[in-house]
Amino acid sequence: MELSHFDDMGNAHMVDVSEKEVTKRSAVATGIIEMQRETLQVILDKKISKGDVLTVAQTAGISAVKRTWELIPLCHIVMIRNVEITFDTCSGEESENKGIIKVTCTIRGEDKTGFEMEALTGVSVTLLTIYDMCKAIDRGMEIKNIRLEYKDGGKSGRFTRGK
Amino acid sequence: MELSHFDDMGNAHMVDVSEKEVTKRSAVATGIIEMQRETLQVILDKKISKGDVLTVAQTAGISAVKRTWELIPLCHIVMIRNVEITFDTCSGEESENKGIIKVTCTIRGEDKTGFEMEALTGVSVTLLTIYDMCKAIDRGMEIKNIRLEYKDGGKSGRFTRGK
Amino acid sequence: MELSHFDDMGNAHMVDVSEKEVTKRSAVATGIIEMQRETLQVILDKKISKGDVLTVAQTAGISAVKRTWELIPLCHIVMIRNVEITFDTCSGEESENKGIIKVTCTIRGEDKTGFEMEALTGVSVTLLTIYDMCKAIDRGMEIKNIRLEYKDGGKSGRFTRGK
Amino acid sequence: MELSHFDDMGNAHMVDVSEKEVTKRSAVATGIIEMQRETLQVILDKKISKGDVLTVAQTAGISAVKRTWELIPLCHIVMIRNVEITFDTCSGEESENKGIIKVTCTIRGEDKTGFEMEALTGVSVTLLTIYDMCKAIDRGMEIKNIRLEYKDGGKSGRFTRGK
Amino acid sequence: MELSHFDDMGNAHMVDVSEKEVTKRSAVATGIIEMQRETLQVILDKKISKGDVLTVAQTAGISAVKRTWELIPLCHIVMIRNVEITFDTCSGEESENKGIIKVTCTIRGEDKTGFEMEALTGVSVTLLTIYDMCKAIDRGMEIKNIRLEYKDGGKSGRFTRGK
Amino acid sequence: MELSHFDDMGNAHMVDVSEKEVTKRSAVATGIIEMQRETLQVILDKKISKGDVLTVAQTAGISAVKRTWELIPLCHIVMIRNVEITFDTCSGEESENKGIIKVTCTIRGEDKTGFEMEALTGVSVTLLTIYDMCKAIDRGMEIKNIRLEYKDGGKSGRFTRGK
Repeated sequence: MELSHFDDMGNAHMVDVSEKEVTKRSAVATGIIEMQRETLQVILDKKISKGDVLTVAQTAGISAVKRTWELIPLCHIVMIRNVEITFDTCSGEESENKGIIKVTCTIRGEDKTGFEMEALTGVSVTLLTIYDMCKAIDRGMEIKNIRLEYKDGGKSGRFTRGK
Repeated sequence: MELSHFDDMGNAHMVDVSEKEVTKRSAVATGIIEMQRETLQVILDKKISKGDVLTVAQTAGISAVKRTWELIPLCHIVMIRNVEITFDTCSGEESENKGIIKVTCTIRGEDKTGFEMEALTGVSVTLLTIYDMCKAIDRGMEIKNIRLEYKDGGKSGRFTRGK
Repeated sequence: MELSHFDDMGNAHMVDVSEKEVTKRSAVATGIIEMQRETLQVILDKKISKGDVLTVAQTAGISAVKRTWELIPLCHIVMIRNVEITFDTCSGEESENKGIIKVTCTIRGEDKTGFEMEALTGVSVTLLTIYDMCKAIDRGMEIKNIRLEYKDGGKSGRFTRGK
Repeated sequence: MELSHFDDMGNAHMVDVSEKEVTKRSAVATGIIEMQRETLQVILDKKISKGDVLTVAQTAGISAVKRTWELIPLCHIVMIRNVEITFDTCSGEESENKGIIKVTCTIRGEDKTGFEMEALTGVSVTLLTIYDMCKAIDRGMEIKNIRLEYKDGGKSGRFTRGK
Repeated sequence: MELSHFDDMGNAHMVDVSEKEVTKRSAVATGIIEMQRETLQVILDKKISKGDVLTVAQTAGISAVKRTWELIPLCHIVMIRNVEITFDTCSGEESENKGIIKVTCTIRGEDKTGFEMEALTGVSVTLLTIYDMCKAIDRGMEIKNIRLEYKDGGKSGRFTRGK
Repeated sequence: MELSHFDDMGNAHMVDVSEKEVTKRSAVATGIIEMQRETLQVILDKKISKGDVLTVAQTAGISAVKRTWELIPLCHIVMIRNVEITFDTCSGEESENKGIIKVTCTIRGEDKTGFEMEALTGVSVTLLTIYDMCKAIDRGMEIKNIRLEYKDGGKSGRFTRGK
């Protein structure tokens, strides 16, 4: 029985990083969720009936970082040593009278491959959890501007957004 | 031993939907990823070394929809009967010479609670997977405008964005 | 080729509930964690460096309830409609000068089988998360008295502990 | 901004079963693992150092059945009410002096879609676990003949292999 | 657009262990489940209809150890090299005519952070699985005294309970 | 309270690899699925309604490799650095007029224990996904000959099937 080589499909594969060095690496991603000013106020006053929105969202984001390789098919399991998720908020003129929560997710560790996807996944799930907890009062919220701000370590070196 | 009631913490809880009716429900969410025009061309030509980007991203998005309740702490496990994830692309003047992929995720099923979070999670993970597969050539890509476009079914009825 | 029937091993199986009725069901479980009085005070003052212990623990407990069938091999996937996890605390004479947090997990829904394991799993993981967040200051904490307090619904009817 | 419809990729989607009826369904799959006669004897004598092979394999198989939708991208989450995994063994002339363990996985429940994949996944993971526990003494074992034997329920009706 | 720093929420984070050394580590935890003497006898006689209780519980416990980081939000993924779960039983006068199963979970490996939570999680899920398999005959069972007995390795050094 | 040592159960445990060296390791497994010639043609023509079968199957297989330790109870979490899943097809005389897809899964990385189970799990889930996507047109497909072809690294050295 001879098998013809099959060659014309997508060829998805997990990139070979065997020969790369284990180095210290870090990555920072951010994203925002835009909502009614009143919605932001209810979050900050901890009056959302589902609970303390930001702590629950942070817990969900940290848990999701660890599951990035389960969600993104071609990601490696990596050794993460630190996850920080922080919030900034804004609801004045500079945000056109919208309420805005900005999420920053910072990952540190050492591995043969970087943590960009872990940082971006942490931001995304944190934002989705905020949406979930507030959707009963503001279904029109919008998640925006999820992007890598910074990464360091590995052969491709440092990346700083906008530089 | 008498226990004082503890009352001043966040009180996160999964909302009680016991008394709601099982009804047909649907939800549609969208989001975009913005990239260099050249990056989009490489995707459309299926020349990304990690594989056929859109099929892998679609597979990841569908898988993530089913795991929404694992990612978002206060979501219920729901009975999803259909998931569709589709793509539109654009790279002309109307997108300021950026390459844009728009992801639409549609969920149908019947349950006591809606599928908004499932649709939004499907869009998010599809977009993250596109980012992952293309980041070696375009680290500055940005995920934007993740939002609920439509949902139907349940006591709160129909929602159409912008109406 | 004739195969002899193999019959002398453990025969683990997921019990057949096909013929049972879908009925409304509920379950309540409790458990405690015993610690130094000072540890409890630090939790209540929200001064644990890892974050707001009780909200994180509650989030973890609710998430774990949904994953009971992943952890306990012979449990069914069930339709849970409501999860509540609450805390009571005590640190006076009646607890022999120990600090005590009591966790109560209540599950409601409808299915062909009950939610006892979901309630007990929710209590266990909530308590483990409290341990995790405080272990840097009090490694001798002890988890105790995890038990079913009440369950209702299904053919076996109501159970109330101690009755 | 006008988006051209994108249409020439794989179009993976979870089939829409919204309009189908919830009916009683069942599925039976089988598969075998072929090994040295001596390996089978060590299993039956419960002398494998990793533990009681068949009970561990059965536990793994039942757990995997519940996770089929996590493994197979386009499978639905379904309501399984019963899982049975049983073993037959053979090591005489009729198996050409090989040791053979045959695994049968039976699923029952009710849903809008069938349990074929659940039965096949249960068989596969049970067989893989047997391989794992015995590979230290017999790396040449082979998994064979994983197939659907029977399924019933749903619009396509009954299927019996070989009929 | 200026964003005010947001600072007054729980600040949950995964502790930074980047600068710690990878060292050999171990942890031992124990816990018990208390039941009717008759229940214990049925387990030891392997007459529980759901299967061989202790082997299934052990399998569940080992699997849960590996998923500790999924259950406990702020735990790191760690490199576990060995898991042992053992049982001791007792049903005489010294246990006041109750049946008691004591579970001991021992973890070994090397990492930048310890395995206390993995050992405690292994004990908890092993005990919950015993409860699940026996609850049809003894709903009043109680899980007790889950605690860390020993841990070694890392900067904080050795801990032995009661010393 | 004295506890008699309990000793007569299965004693499943995750083998202790603490003292082994971290070495480069690789493993290759293969398996086939046998189907009607017409079914294979429909796959190759990308006319299966569920989508591009081979890319979806490959994505599922790669994802499953990373979850091997979740599926196989006594497997360790290992550091995988590369996963390749490739296809060969055949439908001529040499396969007795059946359509055959052969799946090869190759794993590379470095760890204290090998990747045999990861390669075998990758093959199995890839094959199951092909079955799932085509079962509507060919329920009689059969999965066959899943076996380890090669492994290298570690104390037991190189294994090549048939040598």
